[in-house]
Amino acid sequence: MPLYNFSAGPAVVPHTVLKKAQKEFLNFQGSQLSVVELSHRAKGFEEIIQEAEALLRELMDISEEYAVLFLQGGASLQFSMLPLNLAQKNKALYVNSGTWARKAIAAAQTIDSVTVEVIASSEKDDFHFVPKINSELVDQKAAYLHITTNETIDGIFYRKIPKVGKVPIVADMSSNILANDYSTEDFGVIYAGAQKNMGIAGLTLVIIRKDLLNQEVIFAPMLDYSLQAKNNSMYNTPPVFAIYMAKLVLEWVKEKGGVSQMYHNAQKKSALLYEFLDHSQIFSSPVEKSDRSLTTIPFVTGNPDLDQQFIEQAKKEGLENLKGHRSVGGMRASIYNAMPTEGVTTLVNFMKKFEGENGGK
Amino acid sequence: MPLYNFSAGPAVVPHTVLKKAQKEFLNFQGSQLSVVELSHRAKGFEEIIQEAEALLRELMDISEEYAVLFLQGGASLQFSMLPLNLAQKNKALYVNSGTWARKAIAAAQTIDSVTVEVIASSEKDDFHFVPKINSELVDQKAAYLHITTNETIDGIFYRKIPKVGKVPIVADMSSNILANDYSTEDFGVIYAGAQKNMGIAGLTLVIIRKDLLNQEVIFAPMLDYSLQAKNNSMYNTPPVFAIYMAKLVLEWVKEKGGVSQMYHNAQKKSALLYEFLDHSQIFSSPVEKSDRSLTTIPFVTGNPDLDQQFIEQAKKEGLENLKGHRSVGGMRASIYNAMPTEGVTTLVNFMKKFEGENGGK
Repeated sequence: MPLYNFSAGPAVVPHTVLKKAQKEFLNFQGSQLSVVELSHRAKGFEEIIQEAEALLRELMDISEEYAVLFLQGGASLQFSMLPLNLAQKNKALYVNSGTWARKAIAAAQTIDSVTVEVIASSEKDDFHFVPKINSELVDQKAAYLHITTNETIDGIFYRKIPKVGKVPIVADMSSNILANDYSTEDFGVIYAGAQKNMGIAGLTLVIIRKDLLNQEVIFAPMLDYSLQAKNNSMYNTPPVFAIYMAKLVLEWVKEKGGVSQMYHNAQKKSALLYEFLDHSQIFSSPVEKSDRSLTTIPFVTGNPDLDQQFIEQAKKEGLENLKGHRSVGGMRASIYNAMPTEGVTTLVNFMKKFEGENGGK
Repeated sequence: MPLYNFSAGPAVVPHTVLKKAQKEFLNFQGSQLSVVELSHRAKGFEEIIQEAEALLRELMDISEEYAVLFLQGGASLQFSMLPLNLAQKNKALYVNSGTWARKAIAAAQTIDSVTVEVIASSEKDDFHFVPKINSELVDQKAAYLHITTNETIDGIFYRKIPKVGKVPIVADMSSNILANDYSTEDFGVIYAGAQKNMGIAGLTLVIIRKDLLNQEVIFAPMLDYSLQAKNNSMYNTPPVFAIYMAKLVLEWVKEKGGVSQMYHNAQKKSALLYEFLDHSQIFSSPVEKSDRSLTTIPFVTGNPDLDQQFIEQAKKEGLENLKGHRSVGGMRASIYNAMPTEGVTTLVNFMKKFEGENGGK
């Protein structure tokens, strides 16, 4: 029986990528060394990181106006690095669109030298939609406006990136990078943990417009964007294997038709599930139609016991990690680039069967 | 022809560990998932991180008075986290014993709220020995005294940990953790990048006495030791694969006889090389005998052209990454736990041959 992994992250990795990594794990390109044993200053690894960057620039159409950084610490460390590097003695604007946006806001608020202003929020509506921005509230002198393009707990996403004048948009794109038709030039900074759509845990990508790089030295070298950019992400030893895996995933995305094809697939795959949810007798989506994520689909029966039964039975059918986040309950299907269409059809078929057995028509 | 990798890090990993990781890379313990696809909240990964911690506690005899943290960012991020968590509005003492100690000092000095005092230094002697500490200079009210137990660029190490009264000793043990007979209880904090003796790049280990955990919240959650300890290193997604690899390496260390056996091996392996160096006509060690590292052995001919020839010819014999750090030149052999004795004997035999061909007797 095939197994489909709907985990929110670490998540499914393309099988061909895993096979390739396994095959050359003991002998990278005839070197007799494992890729994990390569010195980060050696030619072999230099080529890996340069190719990863080149592929990313090609796939996301990133111009030379932007620096690409391969860092550590996850999006959670970026929640602090962003305000420290970009907004000290200044104001930073935030949209509160879900659990991750709220975390980014809380991290910025603990920094004394930054003034945080939340200019839109859907919190009192349980984050069931993307809050609208009142353009009058966008202070054009603010250091940036922070958005979270996809919320993995609440299941919303930005279909279009808001226009906010001159203020650079800074985006946590962890859960839908490489899966949308966003234009890089609409952003001042894009950052993303790699463990959803770009490989494995332990790598954080930062794409930053060079004019936004900090002029003043940050008190901790590892947190200093300019220093990291100057050192081509090798101020210290980078996460070699995670960067190698990202390179393989980027090659796979390119081979499969690039980001526009991934976006097309995401629309198709998510539509299969949403269509079923909208006609189901027992399952439903809590998210407003216009803002429903293409990659993160929460759903509920309204009955926690039935939810639990569903999750357990699904597991027996090879449908793994469908349990919703502990903070909201219910179910959640994460449908990243590497999830094949068959995974979604298998899930929908099982939901139909479960519905038939549990009071649906 | 076998290949021996003398890289300073990322470095040689035990071959049996690499084989095991490769074998189960597509199917971790019958789960049909790769270990890189495991959710960090799933039982499979929970067992990995718990076993890694238990093995480390057993091998290093770490009592429950200490917390064990699996973090990201390398020793370089610890250079900042340590003073931020332990020494704000206080004094921190440092020993300047080499290039890495100097980096730790520089990072602490950029933090306004910390007073840094360097109480011993061998810098003017090119770091050829471990500087002696004058106990009168150890302010007993200082937050900690920082040492670097092994210097990978300069080739010195602490044979014995200094006694400094009540001041906790904080140690960067990146390059000789699990290779010495140090007692954990002699330290307040031990930290180490994993990419030398504990697996692969992208994981940083912190062992911290619980009474030293910060009482005040740190302005960046990811940098807050107490928060990381409270969340069992899972405040956010940890570097899953690097922790898995550390677990495999720790299992290997245990199977091979534990840390005392590793220490014994390190003494034996390094002695083979030092003995040759001390009788060589063309090669020599720049480090004072009493402080010579067991894991990091720099050596020179005194002639940069001859050094270059040696490095190139050694490479052809399967002796890889012997080039010294770009800041000091010459050669360097990193002899970590995973380097077999045959690697060192092969190196010494080649050095003898090279010497015979290049003016030695």
